[in-house]
Amino acid sequence: MTTIAVGVEAMDGPARATTVTTARGSFPTPCFMPVGTRGAVRTLAAADLEDLGARVVLANTYHLMLRPGAGVVASLGGLHGWTGFGGHLLTDSGGFQVFSLGDGVAVDDDGVTFRSTYDGSTHRLTPELAVGVQAQLGSDIQMALDVCLALPAEPAALRLAVDRTARWAARARAAERPVDQALFGIVQGGTDTGLRVESARRTVELDFDGYGIGGLSVGESRAEMVDALGATIAELPADRPRYLMGVGDPAGLAEGVGLGVDLFDCVLPTRLARHGTVLTSEGRWQVRNASKAEDGGPVDPNCRCPVCARHSRAYLRHLHMVGEPVAARLLTIHNLAFTFDLVDSLRAAVVAGTFAARRAEVLAIWG
Amino acid sequence: MTTIAVGVEAMDGPARATTVTTARGSFPTPCFMPVGTRGAVRTLAAADLEDLGARVVLANTYHLMLRPGAGVVASLGGLHGWTGFGGHLLTDSGGFQVFSLGDGVAVDDDGVTFRSTYDGSTHRLTPELAVGVQAQLGSDIQMALDVCLALPAEPAALRLAVDRTARWAARARAAERPVDQALFGIVQGGTDTGLRVESARRTVELDFDGYGIGGLSVGESRAEMVDALGATIAELPADRPRYLMGVGDPAGLAEGVGLGVDLFDCVLPTRLARHGTVLTSEGRWQVRNASKAEDGGPVDPNCRCPVCARHSRAYLRHLHMVGEPVAARLLTIHNLAFTFDLVDSLRAAVVAGTFAARRAEVLAIWG
Repeated sequence: MTTIAVGVEAMDGPARATTVTTARGSFPTPCFMPVGTRGAVRTLAAADLEDLGARVVLANTYHLMLRPGAGVVASLGGLHGWTGFGGHLLTDSGGFQVFSLGDGVAVDDDGVTFRSTYDGSTHRLTPELAVGVQAQLGSDIQMALDVCLALPAEPAALRLAVDRTARWAARARAAERPVDQALFGIVQGGTDTGLRVESARRTVELDFDGYGIGGLSVGESRAEMVDALGATIAELPADRPRYLMGVGDPAGLAEGVGLGVDLFDCVLPTRLARHGTVLTSEGRWQVRNASKAEDGGPVDPNCRCPVCARHSRAYLRHLHMVGEPVAARLLTIHNLAFTFDLVDSLRAAVVAGTFAARRAEVLAIWG
Repeated sequence: MTTIAVGVEAMDGPARATTVTTARGSFPTPCFMPVGTRGAVRTLAAADLEDLGARVVLANTYHLMLRPGAGVVASLGGLHGWTGFGGHLLTDSGGFQVFSLGDGVAVDDDGVTFRSTYDGSTHRLTPELAVGVQAQLGSDIQMALDVCLALPAEPAALRLAVDRTARWAARARAAERPVDQALFGIVQGGTDTGLRVESARRTVELDFDGYGIGGLSVGESRAEMVDALGATIAELPADRPRYLMGVGDPAGLAEGVGLGVDLFDCVLPTRLARHGTVLTSEGRWQVRNASKAEDGGPVDPNCRCPVCARHSRAYLRHLHMVGEPVAARLLTIHNLAFTFDLVDSLRAAVVAGTFAARRAEVLAIWG
């Protein structure tokens, strides 16, 4: 039994516009999910995310199981009660942070042992434990524990990662979880299209509620990513969501939607904002540029966000230059609004049958 | 000609509820003004201040004349256009920061020379220059340049400060300024009630739009402050606003309103918030307290602010403990809402004729 329904409203080539329905409700795709690492999208409150129209927010199991602990989150109403966010929440499995933050990471066939980035204490995740922690967190969508490799990786390491990921997926699928939580499997395989196809088939056999495509956007070229992604999606069922993990740059979004991806997450728009880089309809630029010091125009004249409606480039530059904390928040709001609007424009193009032209426009600026 | 009108709506002893009308509009007093040091109340955007119902926000001339420069602010529509804040804005004269941040401060009869805290460059303020800078900033209310001393101070130093402040006040009063900007003189004199009376009379003689009471809450005892404040206010005209500079703790607000003060400013509520200290109807406490780790209740069950409506003590504690920047913003919103509500409750008590009881309640918790 699947706990997610996908209604495909329009297709334009492989690109599609859908409505995903979960136990919590429905949201349209393609959809970009901001990353709320430690229970908040950095600099933002739940009200900001709702005002922005964020449909799904990602939360990091790794961080939350360590601080404040999944039991604490559970006792305070799960992630929704604890954060106060009314939209959908997706939790990752913790695997990506374990492997990327890891000092003292020991993987075995059964699971992974790692040291906390907070205090060096030792912790363990297995496929079953990851399901259990995410059950306590109470997200709407869980991700199965997978093995993530940095690219380039040796063929033998890639093969082992794919095998373990498949075996762990079967165990996660078999583990008990709340009936209102969906569970996505994750396809690995690096940039090897043969391995990608194999990994996709082995994951789809297990009949997940949706499919993550992991291990991309980790150092490979754009062409390699597109090949691996295309090979993967060809194996995925049309009636389940496809989630390209860790991609959220404008070109990556346009390419991903073009290949049939429904969901994306990435820290890029929010991280860039904190460093003073803004995303606009004409490309990206640095808010600290001296040329903006007396520029009374909005960050992006084509943007509908409340920051562009009220504040000038000069004012935002000043706040950034003197280190006012609100600068990061205002630029984060803008960059997320820009990214949401970009994805919505891709959806609208799919519905209108003009996706190829819209994709070309985006790639001309961002490609 | 005065550019401010004060309508006294109710009195209860010396305490009063008024409506102050400027060229921009009207606002009720007593009124607490948050401090927007560098063009923003730290962690907040203009929209946050409007949502909170902030009526008047203070901006620091010292910081703004150095970064981004008064000319830049003027070219972008003055403080209102530049910050996007729709309420009233009051600028200080720059004097307080010159004296308190000062390395290399040289005061003479004509004015003060100082080094920039940003880059060490040398700058000059005279009474006329301070009016000119504030004219460029375009606030609704200017403050005259005064000489601020740290207490305790030698009698001769206090006497010189009072004399210079009076002479500078006369020059500020005579300087040309925009017709829509009010100008307040500042009473000095430390805790010497005789000097306070003299300083008040010499300032009132010059017929300002309102009167600041400076040089208090700088290290003296509460009793000394109350004596100096009472002696000052007895000399001030009833038809002009009285502004107690640098006071914003709950007890200080209750004492000040009780003596007839209309306006207050202080960094305390916002600074405490950034350090994780919350102000509540039952007193103040630290959000990092371990006892709050699983506390699902709001910061203050009696608070009407959006943070208390949505977020728990446990969640706010978590955000603070892991260093999420939004923690400071959410606690700042709460502490300002608490302070605004406290002042509104003092006003309501004046109108109801129950001020003594309300003052006693506040002092029982905060005194």
